[in-house]
Amino acid sequence: MNIDLSHGSGGKQTSNLIHDIFLKNFDNEILNKLEDAAVLDISGRIAYTTDSFVVTPMFFPGGDIGKLAVCGTVNDLSMMGAKPKYLTAGFIIEAGADMEQLNQIAQTMKITALEADVKIVAGDTKVIEGSGNIYINTSGVGDILKEGVSIQNCSIGDAILLSGNLGEHHAAIMSGRMGIKNTISSDCAPLFSVVSDLLENGIDVRCMRDVTRGGLATVLNEVSESSNCRVEISETSIPVSREVRGFCDILGLDPLYMANEGKMIAVVPGEQAKKALAAMKQNKYGKNAEIIGKITEGSGVSMTTALHGSRIIDILYGEGLPRIC
Amino acid sequence: MNIDLSHGSGGKQTSNLIHDIFLKNFDNEILNKLEDAAVLDISGRIAYTTDSFVVTPMFFPGGDIGKLAVCGTVNDLSMMGAKPKYLTAGFIIEAGADMEQLNQIAQTMKITALEADVKIVAGDTKVIEGSGNIYINTSGVGDILKEGVSIQNCSIGDAILLSGNLGEHHAAIMSGRMGIKNTISSDCAPLFSVVSDLLENGIDVRCMRDVTRGGLATVLNEVSESSNCRVEISETSIPVSREVRGFCDILGLDPLYMANEGKMIAVVPGEQAKKALAAMKQNKYGKNAEIIGKITEGSGVSMTTALHGSRIIDILYGEGLPRIC
Repeated sequence: MNIDLSHGSGGKQTSNLIHDIFLKNFDNEILNKLEDAAVLDISGRIAYTTDSFVVTPMFFPGGDIGKLAVCGTVNDLSMMGAKPKYLTAGFIIEAGADMEQLNQIAQTMKITALEADVKIVAGDTKVIEGSGNIYINTSGVGDILKEGVSIQNCSIGDAILLSGNLGEHHAAIMSGRMGIKNTISSDCAPLFSVVSDLLENGIDVRCMRDVTRGGLATVLNEVSESSNCRVEISETSIPVSREVRGFCDILGLDPLYMANEGKMIAVVPGEQAKKALAAMKQNKYGKNAEIIGKITEGSGVSMTTALHGSRIIDILYGEGLPRIC
Repeated sequence: MNIDLSHGSGGKQTSNLIHDIFLKNFDNEILNKLEDAAVLDISGRIAYTTDSFVVTPMFFPGGDIGKLAVCGTVNDLSMMGAKPKYLTAGFIIEAGADMEQLNQIAQTMKITALEADVKIVAGDTKVIEGSGNIYINTSGVGDILKEGVSIQNCSIGDAILLSGNLGEHHAAIMSGRMGIKNTISSDCAPLFSVVSDLLENGIDVRCMRDVTRGGLATVLNEVSESSNCRVEISETSIPVSREVRGFCDILGLDPLYMANEGKMIAVVPGEQAKKALAAMKQNKYGKNAEIIGKITEGSGVSMTTALHGSRIIDILYGEGLPRIC
């Protein structure tokens, strides 16, 4: 059965869709009340964010748009040193979308929300003309566990850790779109447990960022700009799997500019770098973590290449891969 | 200048778009930090909600999609007895969208947010292929001022107030789409001040709902279902302007099923009905308010017609007007 414009009317069909798909999967006592807004008990300092997801194809090795929609917002909260608690989900559905596919996406959101220990407490559904695409916006709130984690907070001498291999999400989406057969799977994952492992090991984290659109290069440039510092990284320390490396070589891609959905950087005091690395490596989402560089005086991002040269790493210009998340 | 896929890359063009349009208009100390999530001080109980906006045309008499996007979420929070405080804004932009139109929409959001006394503290931008449409998701959090306001909370003997004329948003959008010339303007407005006037006058509000997609008929059916009661309304008490009435007569529309973006119902104890009405009428967004009915024993929604007959008012079936909000 396909979704049509009547499912966005706000009337009976909308109500049926909400009950049959969203309430069935997201089932919790707050959402089930179907009020105009969820009522929550929160006290103290919270992190609050939003992200929209328009990835194509909607289903790919390692996940689907629903998994992305939960992980993306959970990760943005986690990067502020917050424990993600509640999400909202806004669906914009093109007429013609398959009801069973929507149900699969909602099921993935349910499973991912369970893993990430968050509740989806409010939602919205709109239907537009089109050809069956589904777009999802999520917003999220979380409790701040550590104050002062900020992209403006990095200082000279800090070490930069990367939680694992670059480029897997990008390569998986691109393979899906181009019909290339390989075993590359998206790294899409909720990263709060990695953050939690860092904090519980007493790491005085300065700044964390998930490495999504724009890639590591763009994130490091944001660090350099916001903290008024220079970022120096070493090419040989940057983890990339053999299969992604091969994929990049064939297609002329640079892993530094490729999108990830389950990778983060953490900037930590230099003297805590090894302890932080050990904490990351104990987590299943950080087992390939590496110390990739450091914060120094100056500006911009530079990389010592495998051949001992030095290369300036600029922010991403141009399109990258459209609709990667 | 038109927006293209590179503006959604997460790289330099995305950064330019965010600075030139969103930061310029939404400017506040929280958003300006450009962290992965906003950090907020909140204490106590909060309301939390989300809504997406896909209205076509994006500009219409009385507002635009940006005004809708702020009012819609502000109103959902207000209906829970909450003071709206912070919003997020997620933009999904079709390539080809006009940069100047996007800027106009952001300006309207800025002005409406100022009136509603909310800050836009986090955002996201995605670009998809298409023909220049802009979709906006907003989420919002607010401080609960009155506990227990709920659609499950209406009791026998309660009075139902409607804050003003029905059908104006629906008629304005439909006129715009069909090229009909008239002076009907959308009622789109932030309603927290009406709620605040009720609460400050000591009204023990049971339930509030803004009357959007699906119209008054659908909202009253939701009240009946959630509070296990019968809703009785009187046709002659329902305010509709002469011009909208004429519009409906010509096109065969029923104001009870038409969407509004600046109207709400409030269910209040019967003995407070007149006081509540006076409180509503003192507000510019409630000046045409009326007591339209009451809660009785039983189920469903019935209306005493102008000819003293009785009519069962069902929930909206079918399409209504697609992409009305």
